[in-house]
Amino acid sequence: MMQDNNALLISPEQMQDRFTAILLKLGFTNDRAAACAKIFTGNSVDGIYTHGVNRFPVFVQYVKAGHIKPNEIPSLHHKFGGIEQWNGNRGPGTLNAIHATETAMNLAREYGIGCVALANTNHWMRGGTYGWHAAKAGFVFIGITNAISAMPAWGAIDIRLGNNPFVMALPYKDEAIVLDMAMSQYSYGAMELAVYKKEKLAMHGGFNNEGKLTNDPAEIIESRRALPIGYWKGAGMALLLDILTTVLSGGLSVHEITKSKIETNISQLFIVIDISKLSNHSVIPKTIEGIIEDYHQSVKTDASKKITYPGERVLQNRGKNLADGIPVLKKVWDKIMEL
Amino acid sequence: MMQDNNALLISPEQMQDRFTAILLKLGFTNDRAAACAKIFTGNSVDGIYTHGVNRFPVFVQYVKAGHIKPNEIPSLHHKFGGIEQWNGNRGPGTLNAIHATETAMNLAREYGIGCVALANTNHWMRGGTYGWHAAKAGFVFIGITNAISAMPAWGAIDIRLGNNPFVMALPYKDEAIVLDMAMSQYSYGAMELAVYKKEKLAMHGGFNNEGKLTNDPAEIIESRRALPIGYWKGAGMALLLDILTTVLSGGLSVHEITKSKIETNISQLFIVIDISKLSNHSVIPKTIEGIIEDYHQSVKTDASKKITYPGERVLQNRGKNLADGIPVLKKVWDKIMEL
Repeated sequence: MMQDNNALLISPEQMQDRFTAILLKLGFTNDRAAACAKIFTGNSVDGIYTHGVNRFPVFVQYVKAGHIKPNEIPSLHHKFGGIEQWNGNRGPGTLNAIHATETAMNLAREYGIGCVALANTNHWMRGGTYGWHAAKAGFVFIGITNAISAMPAWGAIDIRLGNNPFVMALPYKDEAIVLDMAMSQYSYGAMELAVYKKEKLAMHGGFNNEGKLTNDPAEIIESRRALPIGYWKGAGMALLLDILTTVLSGGLSVHEITKSKIETNISQLFIVIDISKLSNHSVIPKTIEGIIEDYHQSVKTDASKKITYPGERVLQNRGKNLADGIPVLKKVWDKIMEL
Repeated sequence: MMQDNNALLISPEQMQDRFTAILLKLGFTNDRAAACAKIFTGNSVDGIYTHGVNRFPVFVQYVKAGHIKPNEIPSLHHKFGGIEQWNGNRGPGTLNAIHATETAMNLAREYGIGCVALANTNHWMRGGTYGWHAAKAGFVFIGITNAISAMPAWGAIDIRLGNNPFVMALPYKDEAIVLDMAMSQYSYGAMELAVYKKEKLAMHGGFNNEGKLTNDPAEIIESRRALPIGYWKGAGMALLLDILTTVLSGGLSVHEITKSKIETNISQLFIVIDISKLSNHSVIPKTIEGIIEDYHQSVKTDASKKITYPGERVLQNRGKNLADGIPVLKKVWDKIMEL
């Protein structure tokens, strides 16, 4: 997933150092600047540029505007058994989400399954980050976030649903299988990139102003009618994911976040299971390998294309970017050098 | 969702009595015959005929063939904190799933969150049944089942993924909000019904033998290439749901179930949260009402069609069928009277 033919190649160390320096200037403590820079760099190394290097300037802008509080940490609000409700205190979404993931991992060590709900947090960037984090440590991870509204309900014109990403991850070999999917078929970031490259979407991505399904990203950006995955199904799931995160965290729902016009004070949920506590834990690696082996034996429609499991292409990007450097659009890196 | 213009109208009592009598003949104990008949009748009352009255003859056939053991009950295999692993012992999927749901509810009462994984069970019919059951008692419910394979991986021709239904439910007023969705855009049952009615599908439902997307149900039934919701996203989610249920239950995965050619010995997962244990429990009903009120204010594309939340149309069917009787195709009821 090259960003552009004319992209610069930035080494992970160079990117991490630059991000850290910028975050220190914004008042992040040393540890927090390094941890936050590491997540943005890691997302970029993994090829998720939209929630890595490309997004970093927006993150900085949110910090400068006071929506993200650099050194606020989550505070425990309520606890019952394997469930904890935390207040994110508008700290950085990345650091809050890592904290919540690790807290849920600790609960899972104690109760087998742990659930952390987080209110008043900020955008976690790539949800997969936390899936990889937990799964590589041997845990099953389910993560959900709500968001500012971006999609109409099924049968509706106006935008009332968040794309509310849903993440599932499990350990696999020394790495992980990580599904990280928004409830919209394409993100606005992906559609804007397609417009920039003068490309159509591979599949329908929304409705145009006449209410017709289209794969023209410019038409969808104009109508704002992005398509939920599976039509009515993804719209329903987006609604339920919002209700679930809102109810469990006691935080704001999509319609309340949307009222403020700024995507902050969002609600998230982290469910983690410690598979080392299961009776079959010693055979689990083999069980998963058997499933993936069967999956990879699929008869392909296009012999030149590999059939990949969720997370498999991330590993390919990671290998390439660690070896060659991270491709960054020149205009993006120029902007980062000015921050 | 009338079944047919020429359907008979059967009262719930009449249906329940007939099902109970048949199950007693098959060797179900009194209590178990009544409980199982209640689930099949309830699914029919709710308008889910494909997993109610229409499916009952297949269920009977599975019992007669020995795939479903009428009086086998689940046995606890392993326990750690809020997680339990159970063996379904090939008992009826409906009764096993109710048992698992109630066991998870008890774990949730103790630990806030409870997780029951169930191996060697049978088809649970409508996953929503267990969502309604838990949500009406005040719990959040997440349920997952795997299944015999029914869909190709994304980019593949041959069938290796289950449609692996995913259920989420929460309490709402005195009822529930229940999302019950398979990972395929349309079930084979829905496509067969469309062929019978000489109708096209509203949206693309799969690929034809030439590899083109189509809304012609007959073409998809022939190619067997049903479409995952959200294309690659639903295919990825189907894979992860299978891995999750298999790993947690220690039971069989889709590819292993498929080898036996019979949909039995499947794996399921039940995650339940007791929201009465949350700090904000007293305001949760109001929180959910606020979200649904906003959702219902959506501007409709077609003024004649109501925008419904998942489960809302089930309530409408239930009201109508309780008042008027359950519409049953004459040929289906004839078959049931012969059982």
